[in-house]
This record gives sequence, C-alpha cells and structure tokens, in this order.
Amino acid sequence: MSDFTRSFAPAEFEQRTHIVQRLMHDARLDAIVVTTEAEIRYFTGFHSQFFESPTRPWFVVVPAEGKPIAVIPTIGETGMAATWIDQIHTWPSPRPADDGISLLQGTITALPARHGRLGLPLGPESILRMPAGDAQRLVDSIPHEVIDCAEMLLRQRFVKSPAEIEKIRHVCQITSDAFEALPGHSQIGDSEIAITRRMRIDLLERGADSTPFMVAGSGPGGYDSIIMGPTQRVPKAGDVLIIDTGTVFDGYFCDFDRNFGFGHVADDVRRANAAVHQALDAGFAAARPGARMREVWSAMWWVMEDFGALGNSIGRMGHGLGMLLTEWPSVHPEDENLLEPGVVMTLEPGMTFAPGRQLVHEENIVITEAGAEYLTRRAPPEIPVIR
Amino acid sequence: MSDFTRSFAPAEFEQRTHIVQRLMHDARLDAIVVTTEAEIRYFTGFHSQFFESPTRPWFVVVPAEGKPIAVIPTIGETGMAATWIDQIHTWPSPRPADDGISLLQGTITALPARHGRLGLPLGPESILRMPAGDAQRLVDSIPHEVIDCAEMLLRQRFVKSPAEIEKIRHVCQITSDAFEALPGHSQIGDSEIAITRRMRIDLLERGADSTPFMVAGSGPGGYDSIIMGPTQRVPKAGDVLIIDTGTVFDGYFCDFDRNFGFGHVADDVRRANAAVHQALDAGFAAARPGARMREVWSAMWWVMEDFGALGNSIGRMGHGLGMLLTEWPSVHPEDENLLEPGVVMTLEPGMTFAPGRQLVHEENIVITEAGAEYLTRRAPPEIPVIR
Repeated sequence: MSDFTRSFAPAEFEQRTHIVQRLMHDARLDAIVVTTEAEIRYFTGFHSQFFESPTRPWFVVVPAEGKPIAVIPTIGETGMAATWIDQIHTWPSPRPADDGISLLQGTITALPARHGRLGLPLGPESILRMPAGDAQRLVDSIPHEVIDCAEMLLRQRFVKSPAEIEKIRHVCQITSDAFEALPGHSQIGDSEIAITRRMRIDLLERGADSTPFMVAGSGPGGYDSIIMGPTQRVPKAGDVLIIDTGTVFDGYFCDFDRNFGFGHVADDVRRANAAVHQALDAGFAAARPGARMREVWSAMWWVMEDFGALGNSIGRMGHGLGMLLTEWPSVHPEDENLLEPGVVMTLEPGMTFAPGRQLVHEENIVITEAGAEYLTRRAPPEIPVIR
Repeated sequence: MSDFTRSFAPAEFEQRTHIVQRLMHDARLDAIVVTTEAEIRYFTGFHSQFFESPTRPWFVVVPAEGKPIAVIPTIGETGMAATWIDQIHTWPSPRPADDGISLLQGTITALPARHGRLGLPLGPESILRMPAGDAQRLVDSIPHEVIDCAEMLLRQRFVKSPAEIEKIRHVCQITSDAFEALPGHSQIGDSEIAITRRMRIDLLERGADSTPFMVAGSGPGGYDSIIMGPTQRVPKAGDVLIIDTGTVFDGYFCDFDRNFGFGHVADDVRRANAAVHQALDAGFAAARPGARMREVWSAMWWVMEDFGALGNSIGRMGHGLGMLLTEWPSVHPEDENLLEPGVVMTLEPGMTFAPGRQLVHEENIVITEAGAEYLTRRAPPEIPVIR
C-alpha cells in the first residue's frame, strides 16, 4: 500500500457527517458532543497522538446541519485548521478552573435549538474523556435535555467505508506476514519479551505505524490468560505461546492472535487446537449479512462444546474492529445486532480445554454481500513449532 | 538495567496504600474508587495492555483499612490473582445491562460506613473510565456522599519512590541514546515517517518496551505544531525537525524532544535555539524543593521574553511525568504547587520566535534535596545537523 492511501478524501468526512445528522434528525437532537480521540478523528480527520496526554479535554460539536465544530486547546489549532473543519474555537488549556467548559457551553447554546435535546455518549462502550465534574457543570449550564447517543455513534462506526476497510486489510496483511515469519527468528530459550520485541521491530520494518497492543502468554500445554504479559518467562519444550496484537496503520487496527508450540505440540493440545480452528471456520460461515452476532457465537460455541470445552473466561468470542482495538458490539450469546455488508469484526473462539489451560484463535473479517471475507491470512490448521 | 528491576516489591504497594489511606482519613472518606489503567496499576501492580480495549470497565476500591479490592471482568482474574491483592470480585463482562455496577455497589456498601463519604476522581486531569450513565447509576445506588478525590490522588503520584525514579531514569537514558544516534542513520531525503520509524526500531533494540507517543513536525526554519505528525513530508535543507517521544519501560514514561537541522541551521534559528536552551537552564536552576511550579515557569519565560518571543501556544512549559505521558500539575504562571524531593517532571520551554515558527526544548528531571537532577542527557547547545 503506497502512502498516498494515508488519510481520507474530504468526501469521507462529509458522508460520515451526513449519516450522523440523519440519525440525529430521527433522534430529535439539536447537536451531539464527542470527546474521545476516535470520535473526534472520525468526524474531523484530526489525527494526532496527543490524546496520549490526559491533561487537556478536546471537544467536537456536530450540529444538526453544517460541518462539525471544534472546541479545542490552542495547542491543536494549526493541526485542526489543516482538516476539513472550518469553525475552530480554542482556549489556552490547561486552565483547570474552566478547561473549555464555558467555551463549549457558548458554542452549544449558539446553535439553533429546535428540539432542546443534546446528545452525549453515556451508554455501554462509551466514555466521556473529560473530568466528570466538568461534564456535570456542562449539563447544568445548558438548557438542553441530555440524551444518550452512545449506541447511535457505535452503530454508525460498526459499518466501515471501502477506504476504511482497505486500511484494516493492509495492517492485517502486514501482521499476518510478521506472524508467519516469527518462528524463523525465534528459538527455544527466548523469553516472551524477547520474542515480542522482535515482532514489534518486524512490524515496523514491514510498514506498520505502531503496536499499541502486544500481549503474550505461555505455559505447559496452554496458557491461563490472554491479557497479561509479555514477561521474562522462557517457554520450554511442550509449552504453547499465544501472541495477540493490535497493530495500527494510519489509525486503523488489526486485532488477532497466533499460537506457537515449542519443540513439539502435545496430542491433547493438537486436538483442542483442531476444535478451535474448526469453530472459527463455523463462525466464518455463519457471519453473513442478516445474521445476528449471537448466531455467530452459537456456531462457534457448539463446535467447542461438542469437543468438551470446560468454559470461556473471555466473556465473548469476537467484536467490532476499526479505529479502536475493540469496538462495539460483541459476539455474545445475548447480542441481537445484525451483520451487514461493510461490518469489520473479529472472530475469537476460545475455550478452557483443561484446568488452567486455554486455547484461543482469532481472525479479522469483513462482511460482504456474499458473506464473510478474511482480512487476515487464515492461521494454518496445525500450530507452528518454534525449535 | 537488568530485567530483575521489572515490577515492584510488595512493600511499594503497601506504602502507596498506606499513604492514600492516611489522606483518605484526613478527608473523611470511607473508600475511594478508581477506574483508569494507571490508577489501578498504582495500587495493585496489575500491569496489562488490555486497557487498550475500551469495552470493559475495571474498578479498584481502596477501603479505609486493608488492601485494595479488585472488582473486575472475569478475563482479568488470573492476572489480578498474581498481584498482592487478595479480594477479587469478578463478573462476566461485557454485560451491557449491568457491567459491574451492581457488583461494585455491593462491594462499596459492604464496607464499614463511618463517614458516609466515598471518593471518586471528578476534578481536573481525571477521567472516569466507565460509561457516564453507569457512573450516575452507581452514585444513585449508594447512600454515600460522593466527594472529588482527583487532586488527592494526583498529588500523591506527583512524588515518586526511588524504584519509580529508576524506571523513568532508565527509559530517559535509552531514549537519550536513541536521539543521539539519530543523525547517524538519517539523511536529507528521508521523510518524517521514515526517520521516526527508524527511531522506534532503535528504541526497541535498546530495550524500550513501547513508544506510545512519537510526534514529528518540520518546516523551514522551525515548525508550526508539536502535536501532529509524523507525515510523509521530506524536510529540505534549512528545515528544522522536532521529534517528541513518550517511550515506556515497565510502565513508566519519558517525555522529551530533540530538534534537528537539515543541511545547515539558519542564524535566526541558532539564536532562538540558544535562547530556549538557556531558558531550560534557568528552569533547571529554579526547580528546587520549596519552589512553586509558577516560579519555574517565570524563570524560563523571562529568558525567552528578553529574547523577543512572540508567544507560546502550548499553554504551559512542563508537567509531572511517570505512569502517564503527562501528569499533574503544570509549569504554568498560575500553578502554586510546591516542588519537593521525589518529584519527577518535564521542563519544556518553547516559543514562537517568528510567525508560524516555533522552537521547543524538553528535558526530564527529578527533584532532590540538593536541587534538580537530569534524568535525560542534556541536549547539546547547538542543534545537531542531518546531512
């Protein structure tokens, strides 16, 4: 992927704004306010690592009509001016006594108040990236009724544009390459930290921008966690290592894992791996337009239950994917959300197959009219072995 | 630094808990609840990259007496069990209808209610990492008066232990090495992205864990932003490039920048650079136990004002540093906070010295009884040149 594919054409942001304004119209909202890096980047194209600093709040107001309005610290003014946004209000942050709240309040109350209703993300999988006391002050200082718009925004972002899909596909392919190369530059005696450090370097050399997430767990014949590590632990013959990575290109994530054996793979691990691999195939087949997330879950879980799974401590078996490592919604037995073309998601079947021993597979897919399509290169049916 | 210096002895967490419980006693709080990665890691030692996923909330309750209590998704149980924490309550997250709130409510109300007051971080530089609607439900479901404890927690973390300081010093030294090596493997014709990618790789090879923040800006004789990029821009002869990085070792950040010239450095840039360098020296001299943050600001700004600075769009000239890229408080003309031994902070004098052209320097220091000490290796007085 040449680098001319970085960023988006202005039409992408016009389209996103058009869609959310239609949803806002249906929900009778005069405006919405968003505060997180992903939400702000989604509507403005403002792409900065500076959100790593929690000191200053940032706000974007999407009115019922017209372009989004930025209400941001002065330090961001030149960066925001380079986006498609025209109205940029700034204040000299940090200013703890009034860190943008009066400016934001003035921006909101200057808008036409047709319904007297303002949307803020308040529900599941949302956060307000601002002091909670300031959020309360804002709500108290405006005449609007405040309405939760979290699901409306998450639902919009669940379906990706072709340009978004290409970015995710690109980072999935880079990361597939790196996973496939890993056994060639790892050996028994390397620690989890040494192996994942080399993979981080390999990903950068292949053109990834950064790796915000790279977890590793290992143990004899399986691992007991998929969210800790890497540690100084040195896997021994018979161990299984999982590496799960969220790597980024131009602001879009992949999120998938691979398992590796050391020296040899025990027979019970081999059998469990075949079951999880087969479960993923079943999830892939079930992931079609019109299917519900819970149906994808069932397709995968039945395979593992038939195998004799003891349980799943992860709480779900896949999720949306895009600007964040994990996005709404979940591949979960109670999730009724429908798949449609353009949805990008992970399939992540996993089970505890013996006490303290898990196996988890993960791939990233996009839903098309014809069914699911892999964005990652499918893991081989047999666990690769490091010697 | 050998890897035995990863993590902390249990006494570190006992001490942190002891200190906060003394502060809680003075504030008449029966308990506090924290939700962010850094706060949870600070009190428990639970160190996971999994907070990169925004789906699930995590909670730690610090009671008036005894160890902190974890109220966390099941997926984190084995990881938390490996820390010094004994009481771990879990629920199968994600569960949007009740994502830990009833469990957290039960944990809080089971504690002795001496004052009927619960601390939550609500003030400047805090966020609640949970849906705002759930925070409101929690507050409504407990009998306690809810008190803002943000500053209490930030103030505690402002002063670092010797073990924390050594981690920060280590990553500052690695990153100083990488900055010094950079001109040797960069040349005119390289893009900002190519230069920073190589630096990311170099940092990993030198033993850094990750680089969550690496920003680059360049322009003829100075740059107009220090929070955007890197981009595909290829600096030309006469350009100045700034690279600012927050790189991490074992969960602790450095945060400093370096400037580079291309081909040559123009005379006006050379003079401005000398002024900013001298301003940093003045800030270093002023940063002593008993000094206020605003005095450090003044010491630096006077030098640049004498030079003829047009302004500063950053909003401050330094800040606390540690588990986050930027921590409370600010080197700001209105910040009255006092320095004391153990404080780790950045000095970041910067100015717009000509329209659209900034120069910013940054170093990381620790305050000792005798005054400031550099954790970074001081930038050379002349801007290094890439040819």
